[in-house]
Amino acid sequence: MREIRQPGEYQYTFGPYAEPIATVRLGESVIMHTEDAFGGKLVSEDQSPSSVLGPYLNPQTGPIYVEGAEPGDTLVVRIEQIEPSRDWAVSCLIPYFGGLTSTRFTAMLQSPLPERTWIYARTGSGGYSWKGRWEIPWAPFLGTIGTAPHIEAVSSLSPGAHGGNMDVPDATVGNTLYFPVHHPGALFYAGDVHAGQGQGELCGVALEISARVTLSFDVIKSKEINWPRIESPEAIMTVGSARPMEDAARIAYSELVLWMESEYGFDRLDAYQLLTQAGRCYVGNMVDPNYSLVASCPKHYLPRGRNPTAEPDESGKPVGV
Amino acid sequence: MREIRQPGEYQYTFGPYAEPIATVRLGESVIMHTEDAFGGKLVSEDQSPSSVLGPYLNPQTGPIYVEGAEPGDTLVVRIEQIEPSRDWAVSCLIPYFGGLTSTRFTAMLQSPLPERTWIYARTGSGGYSWKGRWEIPWAPFLGTIGTAPHIEAVSSLSPGAHGGNMDVPDATVGNTLYFPVHHPGALFYAGDVHAGQGQGELCGVALEISARVTLSFDVIKSKEINWPRIESPEAIMTVGSARPMEDAARIAYSELVLWMESEYGFDRLDAYQLLTQAGRCYVGNMVDPNYSLVASCPKHYLPRGRNPTAEPDESGKPVGV
Amino acid sequence: MREIRQPGEYQYTFGPYAEPIATVRLGESVIMHTEDAFGGKLVSEDQSPSSVLGPYLNPQTGPIYVEGAEPGDTLVVRIEQIEPSRDWAVSCLIPYFGGLTSTRFTAMLQSPLPERTWIYARTGSGGYSWKGRWEIPWAPFLGTIGTAPHIEAVSSLSPGAHGGNMDVPDATVGNTLYFPVHHPGALFYAGDVHAGQGQGELCGVALEISARVTLSFDVIKSKEINWPRIESPEAIMTVGSARPMEDAARIAYSELVLWMESEYGFDRLDAYQLLTQAGRCYVGNMVDPNYSLVASCPKHYLPRGRNPTAEPDESGKPVGV
Amino acid sequence: MREIRQPGEYQYTFGPYAEPIATVRLGESVIMHTEDAFGGKLVSEDQSPSSVLGPYLNPQTGPIYVEGAEPGDTLVVRIEQIEPSRDWAVSCLIPYFGGLTSTRFTAMLQSPLPERTWIYARTGSGGYSWKGRWEIPWAPFLGTIGTAPHIEAVSSLSPGAHGGNMDVPDATVGNTLYFPVHHPGALFYAGDVHAGQGQGELCGVALEISARVTLSFDVIKSKEINWPRIESPEAIMTVGSARPMEDAARIAYSELVLWMESEYGFDRLDAYQLLTQAGRCYVGNMVDPNYSLVASCPKHYLPRGRNPTAEPDESGKPVGV
Repeated sequence: MREIRQPGEYQYTFGPYAEPIATVRLGESVIMHTEDAFGGKLVSEDQSPSSVLGPYLNPQTGPIYVEGAEPGDTLVVRIEQIEPSRDWAVSCLIPYFGGLTSTRFTAMLQSPLPERTWIYARTGSGGYSWKGRWEIPWAPFLGTIGTAPHIEAVSSLSPGAHGGNMDVPDATVGNTLYFPVHHPGALFYAGDVHAGQGQGELCGVALEISARVTLSFDVIKSKEINWPRIESPEAIMTVGSARPMEDAARIAYSELVLWMESEYGFDRLDAYQLLTQAGRCYVGNMVDPNYSLVASCPKHYLPRGRNPTAEPDESGKPVGV
Repeated sequence: MREIRQPGEYQYTFGPYAEPIATVRLGESVIMHTEDAFGGKLVSEDQSPSSVLGPYLNPQTGPIYVEGAEPGDTLVVRIEQIEPSRDWAVSCLIPYFGGLTSTRFTAMLQSPLPERTWIYARTGSGGYSWKGRWEIPWAPFLGTIGTAPHIEAVSSLSPGAHGGNMDVPDATVGNTLYFPVHHPGALFYAGDVHAGQGQGELCGVALEISARVTLSFDVIKSKEINWPRIESPEAIMTVGSARPMEDAARIAYSELVLWMESEYGFDRLDAYQLLTQAGRCYVGNMVDPNYSLVASCPKHYLPRGRNPTAEPDESGKPVGV
Repeated sequence: MREIRQPGEYQYTFGPYAEPIATVRLGESVIMHTEDAFGGKLVSEDQSPSSVLGPYLNPQTGPIYVEGAEPGDTLVVRIEQIEPSRDWAVSCLIPYFGGLTSTRFTAMLQSPLPERTWIYARTGSGGYSWKGRWEIPWAPFLGTIGTAPHIEAVSSLSPGAHGGNMDVPDATVGNTLYFPVHHPGALFYAGDVHAGQGQGELCGVALEISARVTLSFDVIKSKEINWPRIESPEAIMTVGSARPMEDAARIAYSELVLWMESEYGFDRLDAYQLLTQAGRCYVGNMVDPNYSLVASCPKHYLPRGRNPTAEPDESGKPVGV
Repeated sequence: MREIRQPGEYQYTFGPYAEPIATVRLGESVIMHTEDAFGGKLVSEDQSPSSVLGPYLNPQTGPIYVEGAEPGDTLVVRIEQIEPSRDWAVSCLIPYFGGLTSTRFTAMLQSPLPERTWIYARTGSGGYSWKGRWEIPWAPFLGTIGTAPHIEAVSSLSPGAHGGNMDVPDATVGNTLYFPVHHPGALFYAGDVHAGQGQGELCGVALEISARVTLSFDVIKSKEINWPRIESPEAIMTVGSARPMEDAARIAYSELVLWMESEYGFDRLDAYQLLTQAGRCYVGNMVDPNYSLVASCPKHYLPRGRNPTAEPDESGKPVGV
């Protein structure tokens, strides 16, 4: 299988201004090598993050040019495998960053929380243990994944309609993600693998690892989506990224209503009603420049065979509408 | 078992200004009869909610005087059983109310969504079916539950530090809830049973039913909590209710950090770290005057036997610290 | 002129549960004596607020029963004069309270800001000087003013649709305020006079004084308003109180659009357009449980003589519609 | 005086990826020609905006390379004159855009407001009249102005730490603006002149005109600011752009506190106190991807001669610290 490593410098924005580092064919599985959110610089509990980290965080591998993707299409990304490329993970407290501290945007006059670094060791069972005090099971996902926006170059720290730094644990193995395509080749980026993370990514730093990620790509022709979608074996999901957090929730659930209407034949208000009783909504991140919330509907509430875009036909590929 | 029905008018606020309707002893199990959020007035899909509903919504049974509860204590409420007292449930769209519409507080100039009423029939399996189109499993909980605030009388439509209309599905059978006590007897109220509800209560109206709820009460002496807590067999949880939604998340997770610090021996920043990797956070409601979010920590991350307030000792009662 | 002093304890909620302390006639001018927000307990820069202040803040004088006010009417309050009843003012920093600190609702793990008390001396020119370092001109207003909500008793620290702790400097001498009436007699409360205050009341504590406030009352029969209104010689204004702050702005401007439509004959979208070009919107408070924003329209944009509710006729009284 | 016109296509992002269109010397006054926010396409009340407007809005003139500006400096921009380059202005309602409608970010299921276009005629007195129904006085300013962010290319519709689409009326003639410099030459952009605008830019579209803007540039060496600053003859001001709106207010006031501390010698908490009593805070825009609020302090509260960065010395140039 082809392996894609970033040649030269990593990317720190999602945008149309960088040259593709590789071209992939539809249906091809490739392995992408990703660096951790700190570029591998934070390696010891004796380091204070601010003394080690440079101006750029969250390096991305990309952009990848996906053959056949054109503006107005939807990019389909299957996450087939995630493997750690080292035996430890790191988390830390960064001054004025995190969910329970004032920040650059929620600005206050208080002193920052102390800096701290936690190094976790990978265990025999594949979990991550902090000094034997607790162990987090292996539940890897791509913290950052998406396509280039139309004309903007968005920091790899920020999630948005293009995906980006959503930090939602459902961007994981076995699931399929959908992103808007604004440029020929889609210009796909990925990075920031987390060995595990709670909902909200509370202190702002998950179990950060470098990794090998196996992905395959497909495209739904002439189908436009506004925000990222995720499909697992059990559920369809939408991700809204915005502030305040209720706007992220509104986006996620609105998109889910419209998805159920357009592809599963629901009356719009019936979809609104069904999600009232059966929808699920969790906080992906409450720390990034936009908060990301995930709304979902269990598939068993959806009519079978009604989603031509999301379910594979006999040939194993999604079919556009 | 003693059954408590509201004598005369239901209550529409949580406050210290109404006379108790009953007194319960610590450890006593009682059955409370609760009316649905519409006072039983919305019974047919031919009714438009605005033509039927009066000025008051969400009638509460209470206040209940709990013997032995004093200001500065924590009230412990175990939910032992919830049974429907009728064979149907109702949901609806109310103008300018709900998660995907402008409202009285998120005021805009657009026209309201149409009014709609959905009547669900209880099925043989105990679920609730809408015209055979879909069926929601029986997953009942108390939408509204809590104690009287100190000097305020808060609408039964609003959640807050006192509990109230939190609309969180974990207020359910088998779980234990904790509330602040500001008055002798705690002045406990409950109502608004939902046969089921998605996370967020998206359109603002769950599967509303009248019910019989079996509860028992206890008290932790001289222990003050700031916001409601929930304990299930698997997790400890805190509920934050505020706007914007990130403030509700901040409250919930902050309280959980402080809980882990004060009762489970965690260093504060270690608790912050552990919740970053293992915490969970979902949207209870995104429709009420305050949004309610639930943060939780799985119990297997907590040291055994360290929570004297939340786990029963041999005598079957929690012990205060 | 009749003087009204609080007999016995001050009120700490706006609600229907307290007995009126006085009855006033329509058109009668009365002097109300108000205590400062700290009940007069904070008198020296050597005091730390938390060591002095009790559980209740912001004592209110009231409720006042206004003869002739009935549910469904609008209460009209003219502020005729405000005089200080002492020669100093106090401001301070209270832990976890203010606009540039984490709070009970915007909860974080950081340490609080230090406590501080500032005592200002009234100068010969009527301003308030802090140690000669700076002097704030006399620009007094009622920080807290309003009527009893329908069934709720709302803390005197919180603003809302009933008025309350709005902390908007336009609640001042020469202006007329309008409030909803939910009870016979309206049940009017006032307090919390500020000798001056910036927009936002940044640290949460203005120039707090005790005062004598001369008010007169009137009523517009059978006219319902949803949120407080203010009329100055130059402008009409609406106050929205909510969180997040954009919801307060939306309420204020929406109410202003509807006011211009219903009473000044504007097409709704033309009013929206005119306010886009000529409206004004400032932050009253960014520190209370709800933020208060004031939207206004200069009167010279309004058709003359079109506002029968807000402008006095020959008899000096507003006329209802 | 040199006149700068955009050669070829206008810019629709603020970023480092476009070639400078001109170089200016420090102290040089130049005239920049700006197009209106709609690229001049919306010219008649018979046009519906959605049928006329393309995918890009808010064209910017730039980037301008300012000689001598280096990363770590502050760019100083004096607005010397603004002249309309045509005799009419346009405003309109765009579907799902504006302050009193659901939007792409505050997503709801309601139908959009109607589209409408208003064409204003310039009057003999220089104001703008809509059909003689009302006239808005000439009060021009630059809706969009700022420098290139570090690595991001930000839509010209969005304000941020770099300035951009702040829509604050104080970006006007006679005032001086300060922006962070992240690139050699600063890479300055401007556009979107408004003949007038209310606070909040309520419907999202001010009195849009094309214009000639006379500016001069200077630089403060080795001085870093985090957010835009404005200085008028009467006040110093800071602009915060964020969501929710309270975060914009927090940024603006925090930056003002820090400015008063670092350049005017205030104790930090004294500055916080003084702004509590004397600060002003208004809503610039409540419609863009970030809301912009302006906090200000009247200059008469500031010690004379203490601001070496903002006040010209004898040579007429600001001096860095």
